Amino acid sequence: MPDALSPRNPDWQAVVQDSFARQAVMATFQVSMVLMEPGHCILEMPFHARWTQQGGSLQAGIPAVLADSAGGFACLSLMPPASDVLAVEFKINFLAPALGQVIRAEAVVVKSGRTLSINQVDVYAIDGDTVRHAARVQQTAIRVDSR
Amino acid sequence: MPDALSPRNPDWQAVVQDSFARQAVMATFQVSMVLMEPGHCILEMPFHARWTQQGGSLQAGIPAVLADSAGGFACLSLMPPASDVLAVEFKINFLAPALGQVIRAEAVVVKSGRTLSINQVDVYAIDGDTVRHAARVQQTAIRVDSR
Amino acid sequence: MPDALSPRNPDWQAVVQDSFARQAVMATFQVSMVLMEPGHCILEMPFHARWTQQGGSLQAGIPAVLADSAGGFACLSLMPPASDVLAVEFKINFLAPALGQVIRAEAVVVKSGRTLSINQVDVYAIDGDTVRHAARVQQTAIRVDSR
Amino acid sequence: MPDALSPRNPDWQAVVQDSFARQAVMATFQVSMVLMEPGHCILEMPFHARWTQQGGSLQAGIPAVLADSAGGFACLSLMPPASDVLAVEFKINFLAPALGQVIRAEAVVVKSGRTLSINQVDVYAIDGDTVRHAARVQQTAIRVDSR
Repeated sequence: MPDALSPRNPDWQAVVQDSFARQAVMATFQVSMVLMEPGHCILEMPFHARWTQQGGSLQAGIPAVLADSAGGFACLSLMPPASDVLAVEFKINFLAPALGQVIRAEAVVVKSGRTLSINQVDVYAIDGDTVRHAARVQQTAIRVDSR
Repeated sequence: MPDALSPRNPDWQAVVQDSFARQAVMATFQVSMVLMEPGHCILEMPFHARWTQQGGSLQAGIPAVLADSAGGFACLSLMPPASDVLAVEFKINFLAPALGQVIRAEAVVVKSGRTLSINQVDVYAIDGDTVRHAARVQQTAIRVDSR
Repeated sequence: MPDALSPRNPDWQAVVQDSFARQAVMATFQVSMVLMEPGHCILEMPFHARWTQQGGSLQAGIPAVLADSAGGFACLSLMPPASDVLAVEFKINFLAPALGQVIRAEAVVVKSGRTLSINQVDVYAIDGDTVRHAARVQQTAIRVDSR
Repeated sequence: MPDALSPRNPDWQAVVQDSFARQAVMATFQVSMVLMEPGHCILEMPFHARWTQQGGSLQAGIPAVLADSAGGFACLSLMPPASDVLAVEFKINFLAPALGQVIRAEAVVVKSGRTLSINQVDVYAIDGDTVRHAARVQQTAIRVDSR
């Protein structure tokens, strides 16, 4: 029973694209935006051995990088004009090793409030035809005035 | 009222050093181990603009990378021989922007169980003489047999 | 993309009913089991003023009581014979005041592993025809041998 | 390295006492306030069989009730006049069974911001001379205008 999620800013797409472009971390992790609609964002990044831990899968923080940004864009798309978003906190459960060619994070906004947004993000490890559910994230973000 | 934390493996130092050395992600983030004693680990990494978000501070996932490893090493040091550690989940609250020359994560083990360990990790942003408490993490890790 | 969730114990229904019956806390909070199928549980409890905080809605821990049990039953239903379940941890976000005649918790298992299960629980406050999404929970539970 | 925690409201004690008195849930769980100073709160409640789960210890949500209130009072004591506090979210890890005559929750404020506060709460099960660390909570609370 999700709430209706409709954008409060007609320029939400430009706001999100601009935020993505201004984040150096997106280029560093070779993140691409696969889908962006109000309250819904899919990001992908390639797997690289330089981000792995002792067992050969991605270190646990790496999926968190992707998930945090996906959640941030998802809720930013629903905020009024002149908004920016900051992470208040998130919690991530690891369900399967993050192993594969591509890591995908899919974020949906659970609640878009005036100040706080709550987002659910699922991380998938894609290995050829195999898609494994690698992590589940619950995130709280806060609206701040954009500069 | 913390539990007594004493190592169950006389070779705990070699185990931790070996785990650190086998993690490519440690070199990628230029992580150094500043302190390591049973149930207690301090890691540091430099700040680089390539890991920043739209506001110029580190993207929220980056302190999580450092914190997750600090917590993992802290609890690994208390595990019996032939153990490896995996993150089950963690939760991170952001207290201040991660801005500075150096980012430090200090982990202490709250509970070292037979299967599960619970760790507290504090992340600090160090900017010259200024030390800001940037994040607090509560982490659950699981012991697995090492290969 | 949820995993297939099928029971590993043909007597899963008896196990869940027995666990429910042995929990004094269920009677104290007047909890009723509205739906129980493998990996899916809906519990309801009435609203009482004796569980409220200063603003008149349920104190934040009360929905957590209901949610924790719903998640526990959901994952217990998927465990092999001779299993019991304990909560490792949970995280709960509050989305709306828990106000109404009835509080409902709906749990689904996100991942049913050999040792650990990850559950999502949504709490709803039902006030006549109005259903409000009051809380979202992400829970980790562990299988232990039943006595 | 905790921040200095000093009250911003000279009447902080009256505010906290008033909030405690207006919460029916405090009487229902027979909660007593053992210590209250700026940013620091200790609450205790008796153990009763009516709040137990299948194994005879308190159901996981019950310590969460106590912990949530302890955290709320701790951060309320640091807020400016005309403030009330609501829980945004919390995460609780269970470290040992909540078994004993008395359950204690000790809350300290980790960060008292203008809008958000982050609190750490430890729950102890006291059984005669034995004090066991039963749970660790990390909580986010938000300041709202009091009515």
